[in-house]
Parts: sequence; structure tokens; C-alpha cells
Amino acid sequence: MKHYIGAGNPMRAQFDAQAGYAARHFAWQFEAGVGTITLNRPERKNPLTFDSYAELRDLFNALRHATDVKAVVVTGAGGNFCSGGDVHEIIGPLTKMSMPELLEFTRMTGDLVKAMRGCPQPVIGAIDGICAGAGAMMALACDLRYGTAATKTAFLFTRVGLAGADMGACALLPRVIGQGRASELLFTGRAMTAQEGLAWGFFNALHEGAELLGKAQAMARELAEGPTFAHGMTKTMLAQEWAMTIDQAIEAEAQAQAICMQTQDFTRAFEAFAAKRKPVFGGD
Amino acid sequence: MKHYIGAGNPMRAQFDAQAGYAARHFAWQFEAGVGTITLNRPERKNPLTFDSYAELRDLFNALRHATDVKAVVVTGAGGNFCSGGDVHEIIGPLTKMSMPELLEFTRMTGDLVKAMRGCPQPVIGAIDGICAGAGAMMALACDLRYGTAATKTAFLFTRVGLAGADMGACALLPRVIGQGRASELLFTGRAMTAQEGLAWGFFNALHEGAELLGKAQAMARELAEGPTFAHGMTKTMLAQEWAMTIDQAIEAEAQAQAICMQTQDFTRAFEAFAAKRKPVFGGD
Amino acid sequence: MKHYIGAGNPMRAQFDAQAGYAARHFAWQFEAGVGTITLNRPERKNPLTFDSYAELRDLFNALRHATDVKAVVVTGAGGNFCSGGDVHEIIGPLTKMSMPELLEFTRMTGDLVKAMRGCPQPVIGAIDGICAGAGAMMALACDLRYGTAATKTAFLFTRVGLAGADMGACALLPRVIGQGRASELLFTGRAMTAQEGLAWGFFNALHEGAELLGKAQAMARELAEGPTFAHGMTKTMLAQEWAMTIDQAIEAEAQAQAICMQTQDFTRAFEAFAAKRKPVFGGD
Repeated sequence: MKHYIGAGNPMRAQFDAQAGYAARHFAWQFEAGVGTITLNRPERKNPLTFDSYAELRDLFNALRHATDVKAVVVTGAGGNFCSGGDVHEIIGPLTKMSMPELLEFTRMTGDLVKAMRGCPQPVIGAIDGICAGAGAMMALACDLRYGTAATKTAFLFTRVGLAGADMGACALLPRVIGQGRASELLFTGRAMTAQEGLAWGFFNALHEGAELLGKAQAMARELAEGPTFAHGMTKTMLAQEWAMTIDQAIEAEAQAQAICMQTQDFTRAFEAFAAKRKPVFGGD
Repeated sequence: MKHYIGAGNPMRAQFDAQAGYAARHFAWQFEAGVGTITLNRPERKNPLTFDSYAELRDLFNALRHATDVKAVVVTGAGGNFCSGGDVHEIIGPLTKMSMPELLEFTRMTGDLVKAMRGCPQPVIGAIDGICAGAGAMMALACDLRYGTAATKTAFLFTRVGLAGADMGACALLPRVIGQGRASELLFTGRAMTAQEGLAWGFFNALHEGAELLGKAQAMARELAEGPTFAHGMTKTMLAQEWAMTIDQAIEAEAQAQAICMQTQDFTRAFEAFAAKRKPVFGGD
Repeated sequence: MKHYIGAGNPMRAQFDAQAGYAARHFAWQFEAGVGTITLNRPERKNPLTFDSYAELRDLFNALRHATDVKAVVVTGAGGNFCSGGDVHEIIGPLTKMSMPELLEFTRMTGDLVKAMRGCPQPVIGAIDGICAGAGAMMALACDLRYGTAATKTAFLFTRVGLAGADMGACALLPRVIGQGRASELLFTGRAMTAQEGLAWGFFNALHEGAELLGKAQAMARELAEGPTFAHGMTKTMLAQEWAMTIDQAIEAEAQAQAICMQTQDFTRAFEAFAAKRKPVFGGD
């Protein structure tokens, strides 16, 4: 979108551009509209820490206003996605916290999911190897998920004495794989195999490990070259209609789509069709 | 149902009987309680126009009160279901409309889905070949869907620069095939193959092209010969409970089923069972 | 949980312990934290009666406060799960009841589902052979479901002239197997095969008939030895978040999980991990 209220605001530059974001607790790479987040403590299967949780939340919140990043890929270094909250850096300290401190933590982790759902960019997970605990929740918070035959996804909160109710798991997982399968995974904490994940709709596709990130980035680039304003609306409405009645959802989409019909991308698509050529979208 | 308030109303005849409906922008056939709608511009894969949208909406709204039509089949002529909104007759004009006009259009298309969900008759889609855009949404608005191995279903709104949020897609599709698969189809606009559609629960079954319509009509006839008042309640409750809590849904069904227990069809079924014969239902 | 308000209450004993429950209209067996309910009128495929409905409802309501029963298995005797409401003992009388009486009945059956969803114990169905009508709804109300290759599950309300809207079917079944498949089963009343049930996510696994109950009880025992307070929270939240928005669900889980982080089981798990041994949970 080229023009909006606040474009002249001196604060704008800091919200607007995230291509050159300098990440501290993970890696950030940017190319052709696509930002790639790589969890990168491979020696420990990329666990999350208080710091990386907070920075991920802040980055996804900042992406809400970014005009240069059009799609996001999330992956892990060294053949694993993420082993979840670090046992020594997170679980140990949590066992000693007061209730207000605990709630501050659980809200921070939940805010990461909210931020991933709340940014307009499609988020694509490239998920190999271990995908556990909060890592499984980050995978679940993606819009699309690609795995490999070796991906093991475990919502293993119960294994550390906790509820399966973590970061929105009891709401999100049933809608992705069905209530019965989600119940099993959340009560037992067992790993879902990659084949189960594909058959159940958790993964959109499985790829060879060597091709996984490239395939995810290629899909991200395809989406980044599409009508990105409309993609943002698709993402908004997928979340927005979660708990609406059918009639409310239909009215909400009537409004949302009418907005999209006044974008240049809609006109561009029609003109390209009439001229029998491929449309070039601008995201406005 | 034989008797209800307004039965003597002179307006009643026009609401009551739709068997002899004279369709203008599609074909309407009626036999043995089953109405069949055939989208019939096969030379262009049965696109929708402003006129056919409005007439479909009006017919499904009229069916809400029809006492002769007990089930509906929706299909397309010439080996395709529906190519969606006609590019020249709909998309071109839309690019030139004001916001109030656009909203009037998106509400009309949404009202078609509302009317298909709101009529008491089970609606069965017989969906061959191309099933795209608004055509895919009409398929999604059916209660049961049969396809063929050649059916390609594409929620391709993104291809014309629009959001996947069209006619309720972001609400309905995730509940049919799962949130992750729906997200992929709505963000990318790619065609779902018939095999995917069957594996994912979009299609209830695939049939040979030559048998497709007959199979759909046979199922419609079976339902039309069943307890149609109860079928209407099943349909109402499937929509009504969409966004209720579990406890609310259970109370709503306690009331709905108590109503059905005072129908003659319930008594007929018991008497037939006691006499070891097949029940003959009357829809009252 | 060892200590809570009311622990000294003289009424407590009657609420607390259900291990020695003396069942009248089905069999109750208790071992190692796991209670097993066996519907046991095998000569008629274990139909439900007014009495067994009410007793099942009362037992599950009592389990809400039981401190000895940690998980529940529900099964049927003689190779069948349950044939539903007895035709002569239930359906016949229902055809003669007044509306207040009918509503009292439908609310009682719905209350059984509410009670199965409302108790903190995971409920595991061991479901062989015939699983029909209210029996299918009892299966659906379980948290996990195991079947055999011979299990036939039929939501056959329509066959007796009623709506598919019974005991919460129109809300629960679509979330387990998808809206389209649920619609077919509820409109037609046809039996879902075991293979469909597995592929669609109704069953978590199929086992040999001779092993079915043992497998279900083994899983129940595994859960009973886990962090049962947290399991209860998982169960609560799976129900609680049913109709919440995503953001509401995430906040609800932030609170629920913060509560679980103050349990001894969470500390036990951390200490066991640090000492490289298997945690022993206490449910507090």
C-alpha cells in the first residue's frame, strides 16, 4: 500500500521497513519480499529462551506495519525446527516463580502466537526433525507448514507435568487435525509422525530435507508476488471468523471482499486477463 | 407438514409450490420431491452472472417455504460444474463500481450461500470438471458433495487479486477440510484435485461422470422419502450450533429433538419397527 | 489434589471416592486409578434404558469430584458397544409422552454428554461391533476412541424419524470428522465403517477385538499415572475454548497453564529431568 495516514510521520521509517532487521536471538534473512527467521542454536535443537520468545513476539508485532516484508518463512538450523522452551533456561526458573511472574510468561508465549496470527504476511513453516513443545506451537501458528519424512511434532507439555493448554493449542490444533486426534496428542504428548501430519492436514506437503527451505521460500516468494493486500485480508478473515456464526462470517466477508474490489490489484488482474497476459500485482 | 398458520392465506400458493418453477437463468427440473438446478451455459463452463446469482438466491429463499420440494440437486451442464463469476459480465463491471455497489454485489453473493444454508432441504452437489471461484463456493454451500475423478475445485479469488474471503469461504472451508488445508487453497488459489477432495472430506464420494447426476438424484430421492421435517431440523442445527458452546449446543438439540419427537414420522417409525416393516415417512 | 476447601466436610467421602461404586444398570470395575464402565446387556447389544441413562449421567457427574478415579474406560459386553436407546423401553414410551416429558428425556440424554465432557478424567472408549444412536453419541463424547475392524458406528436417528441433532451430534461430530462427512452421516444415518472412522479421525486406533479393552485400559493407566491435575485442565480447556475467539483462547490458556505451573507435578518433572530419571507424578 503506497499511501496511508501517517505516511509522513517521522516514526514511520522504524515501523515500515523490516528487511534490514538486525536479529539478536535468531537469524533473519531477507530477499525478494520474503523474510526468513532461522532458530539457530542447532547444538541444542534450537530451544527457545525468554529472550528469543520476546524478540520473536516483537518482530511479528513489528511486521504488522512492515511494508517491505510480504511473506515470512520460519525454520530451524541443523536439521531440527525447535525443541521448545529450554529446560534449564526456562523450565527451571519457572518452577520458582510467583503467579504474577508465571502469568507474565504464559502471556508472552501466547502473545507470540497472537503476533504470528495478527501480522498480514502469510507465515510458512519449514519444519524438519524435532518440533516440540513451544516449537510445535510455533509450527501450528504458521499459515502453511512443510515438513520432511523425519519431522516429529510433539505437543509434549504433559511430559513436564503441564496441561496441553499452551499458547492456544486446545483451540488451534483441533481445527487443523480434528478434535479426536488433537485430544490424543495433547493428553499423551506423543510425537505425531510426519506421515500422520500429512494425512491429518497438519502439513501441507513433505519435502526432502535438502529442499525443504527452498520449497518454503519459493512458496513465500509466490505469495509475495501476489495480491499481498488481499492475502492480508485472507489472513485477517481466517482468524476473524473463527467464532462467528455462518451468517456473521458471510456478512464480514461481503465487507472484506468489497474493500479488496477497490484495490488496484483487482483492476490489474482484470486488465491482464482481458489482454491475455499474466497479472503483475502491486499489493495495493 | 400439512397444517400451519397461514395455510389459508391467498399468498400461500406462490410460496408453497416450487415444483413447477419456471427458471430463467438456469434449468430447473422436478421429479419425486427432488428439484434439480442445472447451471447451463456449457460453452463457457457455466459461469454465473448478476442475473443467475440473483435468481439462485431467490429460488433458494423461496424453497424455505416450499412444501413440495424435499431435496435439491445442484449440477452443471456439459461436464463442468461452474467456472465462477463471468469475467466479462461480472469482474469487468465490478472494477468500475462504487463501494455501495460493490457491497451490494458481495452481499448478494453471500446471500446465495445464506439461502442455500437456510432452506430446510438437503442440497446435494453433483460436481464434475471445473468448479471454480463462486462455483467452488456454491459447491461448499451444499450439504453433500459428489465429484468425479476429473473434478478440479479452485477457490481462485486470489488469482483475480482478491481475498480468499468470499461468500463465507474462510468460515466454511476450514470446517470441511481443516484449517491448514483451507489456508493453502485460499492463499494460493490452486485447484484441489478430486482425490484430495475425497481424502480431505470435501467430497462424500466420487462417481463416474456418466453416473454422477443419477447418484446425486438417487441420494436426494432417498432423503426426500425420509423424515423431511427432521432432515430440515438437522440442517438447521448444523448451522445453528456453528458458534455455540458445547453446553449450548446440547441444550439446543434437546429442544430440537423434543420437537421432532412429536412428529408423526417418529410414531410411524416406531410402529413400522414394531410391525417389522419399513417405515413410510410423511414429513410431518 | 490432596488439600482443598471442603476436605473436612463430612459429605466429602461420598463425593470423593468412586472406586467402590456399586453400579446397578451397567458394570463398574476399578483398578489402579482406572474405572471401567461396561454396558452389559449383551443379548440385546447393550441398549440404553431410562435407568441406565440416568445412572451413567449421575456417575459421570460424581466423577467430577472423585479423587481416586483418574481415568475412565467405557466399553460394551459381548463384542458390541451399544445399540442405542432401547426400542421397546425408550422409543415406544417416547411416542406417547407430552412435550415437557419429552424435553425432560432429551435433556437427560444431553446431560450425559455434558457430564462426560465435564468430568476431569480422560474418558476412553473401547468400541467394538455395533455402536448406534445414543451409543454412537456416547462414543463421540469420549476423549479418545479405539475401535476394531468390525466396529460399525451409526448416528441413525433419522432412521426412527428424528433429527441428527441428538445429544450434541451436530456440534461434536463435525469437529471430529469434518462438516461434510458429519452431514452425510447425520442426514442418512448410514453406518460409518471402522476404516472410515480411522481415516476420518473418529477412532484414534483400531485394535484386535481380543486386545481392545486391554489397550484402552493400558492407555487409561498411562494417563492415570501422568499429571492428572494438568490432564483435567487439558480436558476443561478443550471444551472451554470451543466457541472462543483465537485471542480469547490464548489468554484463557495463559491463565490455565500458569495455574498448572504452580503444581508439584511441574516441579517433579523438572527435577526428574535434571536428575535424568522418569518423573513420578502425583496429580497435585
